[in-house]
Amino acid sequence: MAQCTIALYGCGTVGMGVAQALLSRGALNERIGDRIRLKYIVDARLDEVRRGLQGAGPVILTDDLEQPMNDPEVAVVVELFGGTTAARTVVERALTTGRDVVTANKALLAAHGDELFRLARQHGRSIGFEGSVAGGIPVIGAVRDGLIGNRIESIYGIVNGTCNYVLTRMLERDMLYGRALAEAQERGYAEADPRLDVEGLDSAHKLAVLARLAFGTNVRLAQIPCEGISRVELSDLRYAQALGYTLKLLAIGLRRGDRLELRVHPALLRREHPVAGIGGVFNAVCIHAGYAGEIVLTGQGAGRMPTTSAVVADIAAVALGTYRLDFAAMSQFGDVPEADVVPFGDVETRYYLRLDCADRPGVLARVATILSEESISIASVRQQEASGPGKQMVPVVFMTHRAQEAAFRRALDRINQLDVIRGERSRFLRVEDI
Amino acid sequence: MAQCTIALYGCGTVGMGVAQALLSRGALNERIGDRIRLKYIVDARLDEVRRGLQGAGPVILTDDLEQPMNDPEVAVVVELFGGTTAARTVVERALTTGRDVVTANKALLAAHGDELFRLARQHGRSIGFEGSVAGGIPVIGAVRDGLIGNRIESIYGIVNGTCNYVLTRMLERDMLYGRALAEAQERGYAEADPRLDVEGLDSAHKLAVLARLAFGTNVRLAQIPCEGISRVELSDLRYAQALGYTLKLLAIGLRRGDRLELRVHPALLRREHPVAGIGGVFNAVCIHAGYAGEIVLTGQGAGRMPTTSAVVADIAAVALGTYRLDFAAMSQFGDVPEADVVPFGDVETRYYLRLDCADRPGVLARVATILSEESISIASVRQQEASGPGKQMVPVVFMTHRAQEAAFRRALDRINQLDVIRGERSRFLRVEDI
Repeated sequence: MAQCTIALYGCGTVGMGVAQALLSRGALNERIGDRIRLKYIVDARLDEVRRGLQGAGPVILTDDLEQPMNDPEVAVVVELFGGTTAARTVVERALTTGRDVVTANKALLAAHGDELFRLARQHGRSIGFEGSVAGGIPVIGAVRDGLIGNRIESIYGIVNGTCNYVLTRMLERDMLYGRALAEAQERGYAEADPRLDVEGLDSAHKLAVLARLAFGTNVRLAQIPCEGISRVELSDLRYAQALGYTLKLLAIGLRRGDRLELRVHPALLRREHPVAGIGGVFNAVCIHAGYAGEIVLTGQGAGRMPTTSAVVADIAAVALGTYRLDFAAMSQFGDVPEADVVPFGDVETRYYLRLDCADRPGVLARVATILSEESISIASVRQQEASGPGKQMVPVVFMTHRAQEAAFRRALDRINQLDVIRGERSRFLRVEDI
Repeated sequence: MAQCTIALYGCGTVGMGVAQALLSRGALNERIGDRIRLKYIVDARLDEVRRGLQGAGPVILTDDLEQPMNDPEVAVVVELFGGTTAARTVVERALTTGRDVVTANKALLAAHGDELFRLARQHGRSIGFEGSVAGGIPVIGAVRDGLIGNRIESIYGIVNGTCNYVLTRMLERDMLYGRALAEAQERGYAEADPRLDVEGLDSAHKLAVLARLAFGTNVRLAQIPCEGISRVELSDLRYAQALGYTLKLLAIGLRRGDRLELRVHPALLRREHPVAGIGGVFNAVCIHAGYAGEIVLTGQGAGRMPTTSAVVADIAAVALGTYRLDFAAMSQFGDVPEADVVPFGDVETRYYLRLDCADRPGVLARVATILSEESISIASVRQQEASGPGKQMVPVVFMTHRAQEAAFRRALDRINQLDVIRGERSRFLRVEDI
C-alpha cells in the first residue's frame, strides 16, 4: 500500500487535534490501514507545538514554509493557518507544485475559492474543505456526494456555534447580550475579538462555500447581506418566545425562480421548526432537496476535535484519490456562473417589530396606517407590559405577514419619525417560515 | 468524457423513480455532465414499465436477466428487485462479470453482505448501498467517509418510517394500533403485508448494514434481538407522554467495552432527545463519534423519490470511480471479524412497566418486594385512573432505574403470577437514556 505523505501548516487548536489524530494510529488506521504519514508540521511556535505533541515522534517541525514544498514526497498540504494571506500563498504553492490541499479555511474559500478551485483543476488536483463549514457535521460531503442527484432548493441553518451559544444562554439564564458573550469567551467558545462571529461574517463565509456547492454558482461575499447578533436584546428573545418563536442567527441560501436569495441575519423560527430546538454551540443545517426532501443535519459546529474529524476525513479522501475524481468531474469545481442574487430590498419575509409607543389613544392607528400604506399587513399585535421611566411608553410587538424588505424599511423609517414613537428604541427581526 | 452504462434490475416504486431521474437529465446531469447512460431496464412487467415511463426513449426494456449481463458495455448493475433470491443471483452475476453494483436491498445485505462484499473485492469492484438505510438521508456516506477518522461509539435511531408513522398517528389522533396501521396502508406508507416493518425485521436489516460500517464487524441477523410495535397499546403511549417520554421503534447499535449491543425494539426517549421529536414517516439517525461528538441526521427514510436520491448518488459515485477506491481500501469491506454481541439478557436499560393491579392495600408492596429481590430499583410509581370492568383493577406504571434484561424478565414473570395482578395485561417498554 502506497503511503500518502502530509505536510500540516498551522498547529493551533485544530491543527494540534489533526496532528494528534494522525499520530495516534486510531480509528483512521483501523479503517484504511497505515496509509497516511504526517511528515511535516509548519508553525512559527515550534516550542509550543513540541510541548503540545509531547515530542513529535518522526514528524519534522519547521517554521520554514518552503521546506515541505521542496520535498517531493509531500503529496498533500493541510492548510490550517486561517486568514487569507499566508494561507492563500500556501494553498497556491501546494496546488501549483502538484499537491492536493485540505483546508478548513472558510474565509479563504469565500474570498478566493473560485481561483483556487480553478487552479486545482488546472493541475489535476483537489481541495478538500469539509472542515470549513459546521465542524464535525459532514455537510459538505452530504451536498457534494449524497445529494448529487438533487436540485437543491434551499440550504440554511445555524453555522456559527458562538452566536448560537450566546443566544441560547441569554434566554436560558436571563442574561444580557454582553454578559452572555463574556461567558462564551471565558469558556473558550468565543474569540477575544468576537466580531467575525457575532457580526455574522463567519456565517457569511460558510454560506458562500455552501452556496457554490449547492447551487453551482460563484458567490462573492459582497453579495451576502450580513447582520449579526450584537444588537439583539433579551426582551425581544422573551417576547418572541411568548409568541412561539426562537431566535437563531441563520445563514440562508435559497432559490427564488432563477435567482438566489443569500443572507445572514438573526431570524425567528417557529418553536416546532427542526432547527429552532438546536441550542448551545451546536450547529444545524437544513436542506430542501428536490428528490430527498427535507434533510436536517445537526452536531458540533466548531472546536478542536469536531473540526479534526472533518479535516481527517478530507485527508483520507484525498489519500484514497476520491476527491481528485470528484474535483475533475463536478461542475461546482469548474467554471461556474456568477450568482444572480435577489437584491436585499426585494427579499420578502415576515417581520417582528417592537416599538416603544406612547400609551395613549390613536397610536396604534397611526402605525397601522403607515404599515398599510406600504402594503404590509399585520398578522398580530401585542401590547406588552409597560416598562421604562414613568411608564408613559409601552412596548408593542407587531408580527406582519410577508412583506418586502424595502417596503418594511420605508415603513419603519416613517414610523420612527412619529412623535408618539421612541424611534431609537425600535427593534425588528425577520421571521422565517421556511 | 467516457459514458458509464447502466442496467437497472427492477422497475417498481424506487426503480421507476431512478429510471425517471436518469432519463430526465436533471440535477445529476448539471453536476457531472452526460456521464451516465441507462441502457437496460429489466422487469417482468414490461407493459407496466413502458406505460410508467411513457415510452422509454432509447432504453431497452427486457424481462431477460441475462441480456444486460451479456452486453460488455454494461458497467454498473442497479439491483432494485428486493428480496434475497433473484436479487442475490443478479448481484453475484454482476460482480463476477466485472460490474459494479448499486443496491437498496437491506435484506440482501443483512443476509449475504459479507459474501457479496468479498466477491466485490475479489473482482476489484464495489457495491453502493446508500439507498438501503434511511432513504434520502445520506447516512451511509456520513459513516463511511465523513466520520472515517472517528471511533463510532453508538449509532441508533428510527430507521423505519412505517412504524414511526403508526406510532405518531396513534398518539396524535387517539387511534388504536390497528386503525393507525390501516391508515398507513391506505396512504401507501405500509405494505399489504406489513410484518417486515411492524415486527422490526426491516429495522434489524438496516442495523446489520450500519453496524458493519460503523463498527467494522460482520453481524448476523440472528444476533439482533428484534421486537416490533404490534403489541404497543395507545394507553402506554399516553402514560409515557405524561411522564415526559415518547415511544419510538429504535434500532440500536452501541459499543460496550470490546463487545457490541445490537437490538431493535420500541423504546421510550425523553421528550427533549433529538430523536424523540421526529414524527410521521421521517427517519432519524443519531451517531456518537469519538471526535465529532453527537451527530443527528433526519429526513425522509422511504418512498420513491428519497430512495431515488440515494440510489442516484451511488450510481454517480460508481460512475466516477470513487466507490471502487473506497471499497478497495476500507477495512469494513474486507475480511472483518464476527460481531461479539452482548447476550440480550445481559443488556441493561431502564424499564417502564404497567401492571393491572387489584385496587387494595399491600399490592404495591408485593410488587416492590419482587423488584427489589431482583435488584431492580424503582425510580417512580404512578397509579393511573381506574379502568376496566368493575374498576377493581387499576393500572399502575413503574419506571425503574437501570436493570438487567434477564433480571427484569425474571421479576416480571414472578409479578405476573401474583393473584393481585392481571398478568396477561402487563406491558413493559424499555427506556433509553442514550
